[in-house]
Amino acid sequence: MSNGSNATGTSRASIAESNRSRILQHLYHNGVSSRAQIAKALDLTPAAITKITAQLIDVGAIQETGDMEGAKNRRSIGLELDTAHFHVIGVKFARSLVRIGVFDLAGNTLGIEDMPPITNETIGETVTLLHRRIEELLDEDDLIVAIGMAIPGPYMRDKGYTAVVSSMTGWRNVNFIDEFTHAFRVPVFIEQDARAGALAHYLFDPESHGENDLAYYLVGEGVGLGVIDNGHIVNGALGAATEIGHVSVDVHGKPCDCGNVGCLERYCSTPAIRQEIVANGEIVPGAQSMSNAEATRALFALARKGDAKARELVLRTARYVGYGCMIIFNAFNPAHIIIGDIVAESGDLFLDEVLATVRGRSIPELYDSTRITLSTMPTDAAVCGAAAVAVTQFLERPSTFFDLG
Amino acid sequence: MSNGSNATGTSRASIAESNRSRILQHLYHNGVSSRAQIAKALDLTPAAITKITAQLIDVGAIQETGDMEGAKNRRSIGLELDTAHFHVIGVKFARSLVRIGVFDLAGNTLGIEDMPPITNETIGETVTLLHRRIEELLDEDDLIVAIGMAIPGPYMRDKGYTAVVSSMTGWRNVNFIDEFTHAFRVPVFIEQDARAGALAHYLFDPESHGENDLAYYLVGEGVGLGVIDNGHIVNGALGAATEIGHVSVDVHGKPCDCGNVGCLERYCSTPAIRQEIVANGEIVPGAQSMSNAEATRALFALARKGDAKARELVLRTARYVGYGCMIIFNAFNPAHIIIGDIVAESGDLFLDEVLATVRGRSIPELYDSTRITLSTMPTDAAVCGAAAVAVTQFLERPSTFFDLG
Repeated sequence: MSNGSNATGTSRASIAESNRSRILQHLYHNGVSSRAQIAKALDLTPAAITKITAQLIDVGAIQETGDMEGAKNRRSIGLELDTAHFHVIGVKFARSLVRIGVFDLAGNTLGIEDMPPITNETIGETVTLLHRRIEELLDEDDLIVAIGMAIPGPYMRDKGYTAVVSSMTGWRNVNFIDEFTHAFRVPVFIEQDARAGALAHYLFDPESHGENDLAYYLVGEGVGLGVIDNGHIVNGALGAATEIGHVSVDVHGKPCDCGNVGCLERYCSTPAIRQEIVANGEIVPGAQSMSNAEATRALFALARKGDAKARELVLRTARYVGYGCMIIFNAFNPAHIIIGDIVAESGDLFLDEVLATVRGRSIPELYDSTRITLSTMPTDAAVCGAAAVAVTQFLERPSTFFDLG
Repeated sequence: MSNGSNATGTSRASIAESNRSRILQHLYHNGVSSRAQIAKALDLTPAAITKITAQLIDVGAIQETGDMEGAKNRRSIGLELDTAHFHVIGVKFARSLVRIGVFDLAGNTLGIEDMPPITNETIGETVTLLHRRIEELLDEDDLIVAIGMAIPGPYMRDKGYTAVVSSMTGWRNVNFIDEFTHAFRVPVFIEQDARAGALAHYLFDPESHGENDLAYYLVGEGVGLGVIDNGHIVNGALGAATEIGHVSVDVHGKPCDCGNVGCLERYCSTPAIRQEIVANGEIVPGAQSMSNAEATRALFALARKGDAKARELVLRTARYVGYGCMIIFNAFNPAHIIIGDIVAESGDLFLDEVLATVRGRSIPELYDSTRITLSTMPTDAAVCGAAAVAVTQFLERPSTFFDLG
């Protein structure tokens, strides 16, 4: 019987790809490992390991690192996926900002830059510029193997455009799939931004690395959510699941551009925060002429200095973020909720009130078994997340990146 | 090289089990198929099919059906999973009711019975009786291969008990895993009731058979949800995900026993409906002395006759059920929401108002691509769902049921 026809098996090609991916992921998550260690961890036969690793070494995906201490003190050769040897580009889109980063596979930032500020009128221009800039980066750096992009939700993942929403008005005419997927010498992968942030924490964050039931709760210009349930990203039929910003916390509340009423986003996103600042007699002096992010950051700074009105608004915002956590608890029951983006800069006053809100409203069993933390990723989790989208594909579909026959 | 060591493969045992399961599922969903058809559909080699099907025939899991019309007019032998040849027991638990059904693998009801009515004081007794009754059923019917149980949420799936809640107060001291898992000659599988309902529609309902992005929205004594996302049941870290009954639709609303405020369940479950009936001057005459289910059914009957007050309350209930659909849209983006349990008996007046509510509040792209229907399963979807939990395990883990070496 040839190797190609195994009597217990699925088609050779799909098993081989799945096993290559599992080996890459093992090396990615565990570092230098011997063939025997991989065989044991993945329940693969020594013959399979020998064959697949030879192929991966051959195409340059992994390499031998020389002797390492083996089991029972026998010495054996280590294998390594050199995360510094492959680079990816991450692109984060927002209403008025496109940020580009170059990262290695471990999520280390090699460079980061913002495109010129964008208005609805300059979106076409920005897209043209972005194409050009990505081409330049690809020319400069041969190690780049993939591009990831992060788009604010509701992003229709399977169709390529954002549905609604005010925060991305001008971008609605761009079909990201048509525009970018096949535009460059390397493949492009596109994901909703909070889902990309969840992948970033899963892959790059020492605080949540490899957690199989993880939620990344983005509270910034918009409010978004990415959920990993038992190792699977929750996508929904059109890829429009986990749109927590448009879950209503008050069915009699403020109308939202999405058509719904009382959407969470209307209470704790930075535009909502700035609106409250201005409506309450400019809690932050000069807020009227600040951007949403600037006004929000200024509010946090004032609250830290003890300003009573600023503290009050921070606490109110935190309660709404807590109501969002309650939705996440009941809808997804993750082991860990990571709150990220601008609001994660707010600090303890904020987090304590989020926790108090959740403690007061949840089942003790769930409260006690769910961690809620602020993101501590050094770089913008969405641009890092765009890179994580690319890295995830690199690890899951090696044959897209290497000539593996 | 022996069959046991395939150079492309994972461990023989796990591949073999996975392939057996895929073949059983193929036959379950597609009916009589030739080996060539299965090989093509599952991307398996002919050698693998020959070996695995021989083994499955040998232990009696599947059988040959004689000649069938093959491709290119060659005749070939059909294989069949005879769904009438294996039976399962489904047990549905509720506050005051335990219902037991015997089903075949296709979900056909062979028998159904209710245990005597239950109060908090008689739960211990009920558990003892249930053990005895299941033993009798197992003695009477050799074809029974598994038992499934459906428990109202929030059910801590990985721990075995219900967290909170008023509707199951007396049951909180029962650990279902300890009590039942290893109690009988056949294995027992336990699931939250709405998740079981989702599996019932996935397996048994011609209207939604095999739909990979499916939500079963249980609106009855409680409000629950089961979601299949891309073929995976969404469970959460402790198995307490998709608890939509305790997602708040109004953060300033009615307090709930779970600790949260404004829980959906407080507005459209049958206890909430009965409360409204009574609070509004007994819209249903005699409602005070009726059970929640009786009062709700009487309300629906009155509304159908055109009673204005009854219609008004049905429409109000439908709007809240619609708000719940909006949560499901934004959290899970399923392709199909099936509304089931007592409220599914309400008919068109109700469904039309649910649809109008959702249409008015959702993104058109999502509304247009999501079906919302009332369940048309002939039997109580939760007891049928309990059976579906058992059938799912039968199809996914054949080696639990047959001596497959």
